[in-house]
Amino acid sequence: MSDTELHEDTPAPESELDEDDRLKPEFVSAVLEAVAAGDAEAARARVAPLHPADIADLVELTPAELRPALAAAISDLIDGDVLAEMNDWVREALVDALEPHQVANIAAELDTDDAVAIIEDMDFEDQREVLRALDPDDRAAIEEALSYPEETAGRLMQREMIAVPEHWTVGNVLDYLRADEELTTDFWEIFVVDPAHRPVGTCMLSWILRSPRAVSVSDVMKREQTLIPADMDQEEVALRFQKYALISAAVVDSGGRLVGMITVDDVVHIISEEAGEDILRLSGAGEGDINEPVLLTVRTRLTWLFVNLGTAMLAASVVGLFQGEIAKFALLAVLMPIVSGMGGNAGTQTLAVVVRALATNQLTESNTLRMIFREFRIAAANGATLGIAIGTGTMLIYGIPALALVIAAAMVINNLIAGLAGVLIPVTLDRLRIDPAVSSAVFVTMMTDVMGFLSFLGLATLVGIGG
Amino acid sequence: MSDTELHEDTPAPESELDEDDRLKPEFVSAVLEAVAAGDAEAARARVAPLHPADIADLVELTPAELRPALAAAISDLIDGDVLAEMNDWVREALVDALEPHQVANIAAELDTDDAVAIIEDMDFEDQREVLRALDPDDRAAIEEALSYPEETAGRLMQREMIAVPEHWTVGNVLDYLRADEELTTDFWEIFVVDPAHRPVGTCMLSWILRSPRAVSVSDVMKREQTLIPADMDQEEVALRFQKYALISAAVVDSGGRLVGMITVDDVVHIISEEAGEDILRLSGAGEGDINEPVLLTVRTRLTWLFVNLGTAMLAASVVGLFQGEIAKFALLAVLMPIVSGMGGNAGTQTLAVVVRALATNQLTESNTLRMIFREFRIAAANGATLGIAIGTGTMLIYGIPALALVIAAAMVINNLIAGLAGVLIPVTLDRLRIDPAVSSAVFVTMMTDVMGFLSFLGLATLVGIGG
Repeated sequence: MSDTELHEDTPAPESELDEDDRLKPEFVSAVLEAVAAGDAEAARARVAPLHPADIADLVELTPAELRPALAAAISDLIDGDVLAEMNDWVREALVDALEPHQVANIAAELDTDDAVAIIEDMDFEDQREVLRALDPDDRAAIEEALSYPEETAGRLMQREMIAVPEHWTVGNVLDYLRADEELTTDFWEIFVVDPAHRPVGTCMLSWILRSPRAVSVSDVMKREQTLIPADMDQEEVALRFQKYALISAAVVDSGGRLVGMITVDDVVHIISEEAGEDILRLSGAGEGDINEPVLLTVRTRLTWLFVNLGTAMLAASVVGLFQGEIAKFALLAVLMPIVSGMGGNAGTQTLAVVVRALATNQLTESNTLRMIFREFRIAAANGATLGIAIGTGTMLIYGIPALALVIAAAMVINNLIAGLAGVLIPVTLDRLRIDPAVSSAVFVTMMTDVMGFLSFLGLATLVGIGG
Repeated sequence: MSDTELHEDTPAPESELDEDDRLKPEFVSAVLEAVAAGDAEAARARVAPLHPADIADLVELTPAELRPALAAAISDLIDGDVLAEMNDWVREALVDALEPHQVANIAAELDTDDAVAIIEDMDFEDQREVLRALDPDDRAAIEEALSYPEETAGRLMQREMIAVPEHWTVGNVLDYLRADEELTTDFWEIFVVDPAHRPVGTCMLSWILRSPRAVSVSDVMKREQTLIPADMDQEEVALRFQKYALISAAVVDSGGRLVGMITVDDVVHIISEEAGEDILRLSGAGEGDINEPVLLTVRTRLTWLFVNLGTAMLAASVVGLFQGEIAKFALLAVLMPIVSGMGGNAGTQTLAVVVRALATNQLTESNTLRMIFREFRIAAANGATLGIAIGTGTMLIYGIPALALVIAAAMVINNLIAGLAGVLIPVTLDRLRIDPAVSSAVFVTMMTDVMGFLSFLGLATLVGIGG
């Protein structure tokens, strides 16, 4: 696998991007009009100056039916760097349209991690064909990466890195780096290894540059390092990079031997995805990828909606217990959604805070009790305030003191339920090693719906409002 | 401002951390017990081997009332690196307890960006006193950083960096780096500037290391660079780092002169925060910071809950229009929350996807129409499926064909409303430059509640079910 060249990254000229670094719609339309008009030359000329990340965006912004024509017009510009930046679904469709030897040519240009990202989504048969078309070194590297489970450090790492023995001096390192044409050119740290190839230290390049030639590498390196096991989940890799502000880190196999490195630019998009996916999971929108085939999206969302339909029917059956009271006093039906809805809103607030705090490791066993107490106090304050407001409003509008007291009391009760459920449910799921973002919302809403209806209609029945 | 030393970063010994890199609760309790027992020596001994990020976590995990005692016991361990890693609220309380000259000593150790982060939250008077206690160079650097608005690149950047003229050779650079003791030791790239100190190129250290001494810097550097204006908002800085996979970037003033650099480790937490805050904003939980004072949290959440109370009352008033029908046929009150609730769930799904797609620049003007069409198709498919399911269920349970048809039709209508509102509302707010994450949910829920009740109760009235 040859190294990427030095001067390849060309940021897009300012003029094609708006102030948020998005491609301007005029630019996208102009390129697509040229493609539609069959003027591949004009399309290519406009796209050529773009940064790979912007070319990838252009392909994503193009309607699916126009993508093959666009890809044909700018085929030489869609290199490995562009593919590596592209949305999985869009890339898969593009790669499927290529011959295996074309994919092999692209993969051979890339670092292992980017090559693996392109190849791992292919059918097993196509994958085999691409691997056969690669030269033996590249093939071995990619096959080894593919031997690690998906979404682990082993898939994420690149094998191109610099490792030197600890008895070397700074001068040895400089000579080695200058002499060997085959070495990678893009790295931020070098790894110092013992004779068994186990990492013993890490050295920032700036420390090497600032040290005299005669100094020993082992005197410059940092001995304490954050090693990444090759089978570590990529989420944990991302959290570790974030927590310790790492730029690159050594990946080790089960025997503690250095097998690759991960650089921060490979995990930045994971950090962002992981942080952003909670909102999608909490709402039951799956991956929430706008490039996903519509049928798959429908299936994911429907699954969640059917679960919610079950809880909605459960809540409705609670209302069903009070049909007699409602028939006698229909105002109960008018006011009951306020109690359940407000509980739902309050529960969602608590849930969002707790899910984020769990995801960022701010909420651990050490402060769970404090968190429960904190949310209880907040729920009590919110419930009391809202209860007074809705009670006063009900009194003013309908002039029925018993009804005002009942809705105020139900509001307090349901806010407390919302606050407690909003903490206890995600924390319990987390302890059970179930992703709280995926499954908490349905339980919390069920609690606030059922208890909202039950407390309001139940209290009203107890005090005899419906009678 | 002296540079940070080489070997300072000590990751915590594995044993004190669980598999998710969180401090084990036993460890936290042991330290806090030692503190409570007045055994500062024992507490300090346990904390000393921890990484600064873990010491910051320990302080955050400690109950607020115990933090002063912990801080006193491990005061020499709470250095600038620990403070830089700490939650804003927790840090502010700690820093408030220190004398200005202590803060100045800590700030003097740090790079500009970290020093600014600590000083910017202080009262104006205290800030002045800390600045006076600093030596003139440090003071000037920090004062200039503070002159940029909060949350801009100017606050985020550090002034410690390496800039060299373009006529230098690789050899000149090496000699310069080795000779000048005062230079920063931690950097990943060097910046090449013209005589007016405007950046003309960037050079990865690995390219310098791999080039012979005689080569000119201008032949090694990359001319195309992503420059960051000093007044750019930090969110945009983070998006730019993410999009172009930057490790460090030059910050320029309005005259295009190099004034500082931002490194990826300074923006990684912003990337994560920005991605994670949508879930908090969408639920109306504000910053969702669990270290925020409770009263502030109550105020933020109540504001949002009161807005929702308004929409809940609006929805209730729609139900109020049909009191007569409900009194005659209370089953309507039992089933109506299913229609409104399911619309709310479907709307939230669409909303979450659209808010994320807007935040990640995947949804732009170029593909908005396609997105609306996509969500419409999904809503139609989901609505039809759910409508058939609930219609069939209603028929089986209650045996009233008209009621089954009405609830099925209302379900379809409300799903379509949910899908359209879920796209159109956030997209419109985004065009108006209003953060869609903050204000969309209340409008979407209002639409699905109102239209859910209106379509179900209205259709029921039309076909004469209540009569």
